[in-house]
Amino acid sequence: MKPILAVNFKAYYPHSFGKHAIELAKAASKIQEEYDIEVILAPPFTELYRVLDVVKNTKVKVYAQHADPLEPGAITGFIPLEGLKELGVHGVIINHSEHRLKLAEINYLIKKARALNLEVLACADVPETGASIAVLEPHMVAVEPPELIGSGVSVSKAKPEVITRSVDLIRKVNPEVKILTGAGISTGEDVYIAIKLGTIGVLVASAIVKAKDVYQVMKDMASHAVKAVEELRK
Amino acid sequence: MKPILAVNFKAYYPHSFGKHAIELAKAASKIQEEYDIEVILAPPFTELYRVLDVVKNTKVKVYAQHADPLEPGAITGFIPLEGLKELGVHGVIINHSEHRLKLAEINYLIKKARALNLEVLACADVPETGASIAVLEPHMVAVEPPELIGSGVSVSKAKPEVITRSVDLIRKVNPEVKILTGAGISTGEDVYIAIKLGTIGVLVASAIVKAKDVYQVMKDMASHAVKAVEELRK
Amino acid sequence: MKPILAVNFKAYYPHSFGKHAIELAKAASKIQEEYDIEVILAPPFTELYRVLDVVKNTKVKVYAQHADPLEPGAITGFIPLEGLKELGVHGVIINHSEHRLKLAEINYLIKKARALNLEVLACADVPETGASIAVLEPHMVAVEPPELIGSGVSVSKAKPEVITRSVDLIRKVNPEVKILTGAGISTGEDVYIAIKLGTIGVLVASAIVKAKDVYQVMKDMASHAVKAVEELRK
Amino acid sequence: MKPILAVNFKAYYPHSFGKHAIELAKAASKIQEEYDIEVILAPPFTELYRVLDVVKNTKVKVYAQHADPLEPGAITGFIPLEGLKELGVHGVIINHSEHRLKLAEINYLIKKARALNLEVLACADVPETGASIAVLEPHMVAVEPPELIGSGVSVSKAKPEVITRSVDLIRKVNPEVKILTGAGISTGEDVYIAIKLGTIGVLVASAIVKAKDVYQVMKDMASHAVKAVEELRK
Repeated sequence: MKPILAVNFKAYYPHSFGKHAIELAKAASKIQEEYDIEVILAPPFTELYRVLDVVKNTKVKVYAQHADPLEPGAITGFIPLEGLKELGVHGVIINHSEHRLKLAEINYLIKKARALNLEVLACADVPETGASIAVLEPHMVAVEPPELIGSGVSVSKAKPEVITRSVDLIRKVNPEVKILTGAGISTGEDVYIAIKLGTIGVLVASAIVKAKDVYQVMKDMASHAVKAVEELRK
Repeated sequence: MKPILAVNFKAYYPHSFGKHAIELAKAASKIQEEYDIEVILAPPFTELYRVLDVVKNTKVKVYAQHADPLEPGAITGFIPLEGLKELGVHGVIINHSEHRLKLAEINYLIKKARALNLEVLACADVPETGASIAVLEPHMVAVEPPELIGSGVSVSKAKPEVITRSVDLIRKVNPEVKILTGAGISTGEDVYIAIKLGTIGVLVASAIVKAKDVYQVMKDMASHAVKAVEELRK
Repeated sequence: MKPILAVNFKAYYPHSFGKHAIELAKAASKIQEEYDIEVILAPPFTELYRVLDVVKNTKVKVYAQHADPLEPGAITGFIPLEGLKELGVHGVIINHSEHRLKLAEINYLIKKARALNLEVLACADVPETGASIAVLEPHMVAVEPPELIGSGVSVSKAKPEVITRSVDLIRKVNPEVKILTGAGISTGEDVYIAIKLGTIGVLVASAIVKAKDVYQVMKDMASHAVKAVEELRK
Repeated sequence: MKPILAVNFKAYYPHSFGKHAIELAKAASKIQEEYDIEVILAPPFTELYRVLDVVKNTKVKVYAQHADPLEPGAITGFIPLEGLKELGVHGVIINHSEHRLKLAEINYLIKKARALNLEVLACADVPETGASIAVLEPHMVAVEPPELIGSGVSVSKAKPEVITRSVDLIRKVNPEVKILTGAGISTGEDVYIAIKLGTIGVLVASAIVKAKDVYQVMKDMASHAVKAVEELRK
């Protein structure tokens, strides 16, 4: 299984928007060519079209950061999954700690995304909720302790037991779902540890999006991811 | 003052998305050239870029359907006003009855939109809340009784007193704000009545967005709007 | 294990308030004395004190209908678990389909309720979310298809497969949690079926709360519950 | 007009609950007898019954901290105005900065409270939203800058211009509504300044609720309120 590097653009200004979003997509495309990993980009709704355009001839996947748990129709200022599918995205992040959903909404979105052939990366705040969400069969689960998100202190180093406990609890209820590590991931070493502890990749935001040299940070992470996976294969 | 024809695309599927959104934008551009009115288009977040591209050499204005009352930064799946400004929109609809906001959020968005030089079309459900919101000085207020939205029964015909009462109450607290009529507007005649009763235009959704011939419906509304304004000028 | 008859008063007017709430509590106390079942009453926040007072010398348990997932302190108009504990309630219903919670909030409330020695009856809309919530180890899970709630059409008769599937999915992830049936439960026969299909009791609202003779409806349900449990024991 | 001393119990633990709530209500009853002011107490939903019982033979008024903008019926864990009226409260606080409401909900609650003969104390965060809400004709408006709430730094001293500006803006749109000052009110002097600047009283929380000697703090505030009103009458 290829390691996964998922980049949540969030809504940093100006980093997540306009030409900055496009540059980030170009750097990601380059990384995708150079490393045998799966790169996922999650720009704001308003930038999805342009980012999709940049990566259209690559293997980079584009996800929305969220989808509203509503049927298409007379709804104003909301984005249903059908609108995202129409645009051409590959998947969607749901239940990020900055955009938490009700349990019934999570179930609705996972079921509908599967019907539309969209992938779902579902976030959870602690290992227990990671397992709870894994029961609903998303494609990926990322466990991110909220207190470490954006802290620059990686869960890999500060709370490795969160990673191992997530793997334990999630595997008990779902042997298939891909497990990602998130929160505070800043360096290639953080990625390396996350994979060695049993997850298949990382969900990263500010460390890449706000980096001075986006390409170099992604390269560091991608190379460590590949290294970790190779060591585990032996 | 020019009459206003504001089109809320909502999230009808497939009408509000992809090629349908582009065709609607093209029809609107044609109407804008033919009539001395102000045309405003409000597509879903994900379609803003393409719609802006279609109308870029016209006077058609593009609004977002909503903005999240949040500062840019570590927020996931939300769109702050700065991201909309960066994209090039002219304004934003807020507090639509399908996306109501807290009072403090409405005030925050109006203040910030003005600072960013974005126009605000604020919706209200009844004349009283229309006046309440007018105190906060948006550029436009649309009063839309929720029970008539999408009903095909226009407020112009079913509840003309809502229009006259809105004008009365809003003018007491704000002599400047542009007042629009909304809810169930389906025909040119509905638009004509709305303007004759003292508002400057309409906020329309399904009657245009789901029409078989979008151009013809807009043409009917635009011509009646111009006629009503001319009669009032005499 | 004793069968459970849990009564959600909801907020019917006047049935759920004042003297009506007190009469319901008195009828429940009588049922509790006559049948070997566990009776749980869940009145509105404002009626908890009086209902607790009525049942104080009985085995009837009193639950809140909800608790806000917040720490006590500078919060206005919210009820934290500490305030409920202080009042003397035995437990709390959470995530009712009329008051759904975010996944992280459900986990927070279950953990904290356990620390305060309060019981948790967690609701879910479908068997899948019932299993998802069971992972978080509440004391009870009630699966209630929202479309049947208040319909007078019982899940026991209309969708027995919801009950059996709930038992199957929940038992896979949690062998301990008590499973209740809810939605449309109107008669003793509905209760009988629910228990025969593998759950330990029911969550009922309007059929009892709005009944002309509250005692008789509860008696019918209690006697059928006892009968079903006895048959299963053989 | 009598000065107003409104006490928001919030949900401090243990201060806002049980015997502490009762003691606060007894102290308030004593103050009510000694000073020609209007005392309003707003305990948590779960303590309303007991606090009403303590003050039943006094002129002290009891308000709920919030009401849910919903019709009575099949709603779980929510408190509609009808339930509060049944209990015997005199009024309700709405839109506190810790429990903000949507604009349409504020309008709904004010209209319905008036129909039920319940008083409404509506909160606002800044003078502009205070005026916006005053258009909807609640009985009282309290403007409380959120950054000062609970700070111990009173708006009277730190931002007197918020008080004068609130009075100016609110009086333009509503000459009748009673205007209160809130946020950080800690001493009798804060109350004195608030009244001298044109408001009729204060909304206080922690300074009273968490005080070692609740009676003394209320006495200090009540005596200064009376003094300020007497000076203004001359």
